[in-house]
Amino acid sequence: MEKYLVTGFSGFVSFHFLSYLESLAIQVVVLGIDINEPDFDYHVFLHVKCHFNSIDLLNKSQIDHVIYDFQPSYILHLASYSSVAFSWKHPVTSFSNNTNIFLNLLEQVRSLNLNCRILSIGSSEEYGNVIESDMPLREEHVLKPVSPYAVARVSQEMLSKIYVDGYKLDIVLTRSFNHIGPGQKEIFVISSFARQLAEIKKYNKPAFIIAGDLSIIRDFLDVRDVVVAYYQLFKKGVSGEVYNICSGNGVSLAFIIKSMATYLGLEIVTHVNQDLIRPNDNKIIIGSNLKIKNATGWDLGYSLDKSLEDIINFWLKKI
Amino acid sequence: MEKYLVTGFSGFVSFHFLSYLESLAIQVVVLGIDINEPDFDYHVFLHVKCHFNSIDLLNKSQIDHVIYDFQPSYILHLASYSSVAFSWKHPVTSFSNNTNIFLNLLEQVRSLNLNCRILSIGSSEEYGNVIESDMPLREEHVLKPVSPYAVARVSQEMLSKIYVDGYKLDIVLTRSFNHIGPGQKEIFVISSFARQLAEIKKYNKPAFIIAGDLSIIRDFLDVRDVVVAYYQLFKKGVSGEVYNICSGNGVSLAFIIKSMATYLGLEIVTHVNQDLIRPNDNKIIIGSNLKIKNATGWDLGYSLDKSLEDIINFWLKKI
Repeated sequence: MEKYLVTGFSGFVSFHFLSYLESLAIQVVVLGIDINEPDFDYHVFLHVKCHFNSIDLLNKSQIDHVIYDFQPSYILHLASYSSVAFSWKHPVTSFSNNTNIFLNLLEQVRSLNLNCRILSIGSSEEYGNVIESDMPLREEHVLKPVSPYAVARVSQEMLSKIYVDGYKLDIVLTRSFNHIGPGQKEIFVISSFARQLAEIKKYNKPAFIIAGDLSIIRDFLDVRDVVVAYYQLFKKGVSGEVYNICSGNGVSLAFIIKSMATYLGLEIVTHVNQDLIRPNDNKIIIGSNLKIKNATGWDLGYSLDKSLEDIINFWLKKI
Repeated sequence: MEKYLVTGFSGFVSFHFLSYLESLAIQVVVLGIDINEPDFDYHVFLHVKCHFNSIDLLNKSQIDHVIYDFQPSYILHLASYSSVAFSWKHPVTSFSNNTNIFLNLLEQVRSLNLNCRILSIGSSEEYGNVIESDMPLREEHVLKPVSPYAVARVSQEMLSKIYVDGYKLDIVLTRSFNHIGPGQKEIFVISSFARQLAEIKKYNKPAFIIAGDLSIIRDFLDVRDVVVAYYQLFKKGVSGEVYNICSGNGVSLAFIIKSMATYLGLEIVTHVNQDLIRPNDNKIIIGSNLKIKNATGWDLGYSLDKSLEDIINFWLKKI
């Protein structure tokens, strides 16, 4: 039986990955590890047998024990200190912890000589400063990371290639673009807008939203498409290769707010708060997903409209 | 008075940097830090007032105290775990220690808001796999590091740019090519050949040398030219910019052995030991030094012949 070790188990991506495994109706075993308890019930799945271990990935001996005992066939490494803002406040913590937790995993797989595929999750942040004519970003585009978080991600990628070429580990890499979907925390911009709109609708609150620069364009895709991509890369990705996980389409934040408002039958006024504008933000980020499509046959299953509706409905139900 | 903090003080580059400062006949203060005691006498200088502190750069509180007390105007960061071979045996130690000692320095300079220029020493290893038509390597060439050590160096460079752009630190970066010169340890290939040749000459030993691939071509320059480049970059380098430190010329190891043998009046036979051939070694590495020349006026002061003679004479005297 296939055995998946999932780090960052308590997060939103992990939940959707488990749901996707469940939808395949094959028997698999998942060991989730995270420093925090998950707030979803992982015992509800019929086909996916889930266990959870609360451990700190910085604790190498804990990691070593878990991997030795579980002997995973796949490691989905979702855990990270993924906030760019946090990384500016705590650059060393962000850089060191992100690279150290990754190296802790790799070293134990190497020392046990495990036959195990690792999916190393990277970020579109790795591209750094880009200009409109660079779009859509392809994987061979030069990386110019502009935050401590992004530097950690590029380092993780470089280290992965060393472990693949030098130690023959089986590692597939991603650069994942902006995820959206039901269940995402509201520290993320789309989820935050959706919650505000749902509250305006449900409680007849004043129809305005305070935001930063709404003209910026990003490549959003549904987390439920992301996890299918991850599964496909486990099965068909090439070790040492990096794949963009993205929709290939760019939309502005203004367009997304308008779409969600229309769905709710609202007329929304947006107020720009200058303090929310990040001076060095790229105006536009769009990725190319040709490589993963060609390698695995993966494609988008969720339209942007469908994603936004599900997010809105998630909040309407939750608030 | 100018105050230099020199990490990796006990090494061969540091000694030559001190000698160069002395040659300028201006009063400067140097605080050297290293985990090992230097084996040279740093009290011999008249103009350069040297102090030494034995500390471990991984110990952040020690570093913090030293920088706080000394308040350097310049930091020459020579300390590193610089062996590629070691990095393959201990990838995590090599990566983490190299990046951590660097971050420990940067963080204290940042937290004290010191008016201090840092010279971050990188390596030609950062370029990684290159092909002959890429020569001479210019600074904008893509970096494809192929060892844990090289990844650490590229990470150090990326982190430097973050600290320059994000926190306004004053950091100038180098990619230094193969140093040679009197006093270099014999774990380095040219120094090792020179010692063997000096012994053959002095003790009439059999005139053969066992070596790896002697056809590989590298860009060697004299350490005494390297340290002038470092000084020039302290004075005229641009913060956030990276500069190759190299001769711009490529010579084969075979040519160097022949040159040194000719100087000693020896006919040498070389035996190739396959075990000494590293399979992934680049055949040829040559850098372009136009950028540092244009920025600082720096140029080579030592011919290859002069360097090799001085190295041979160093060993003839020492053995």
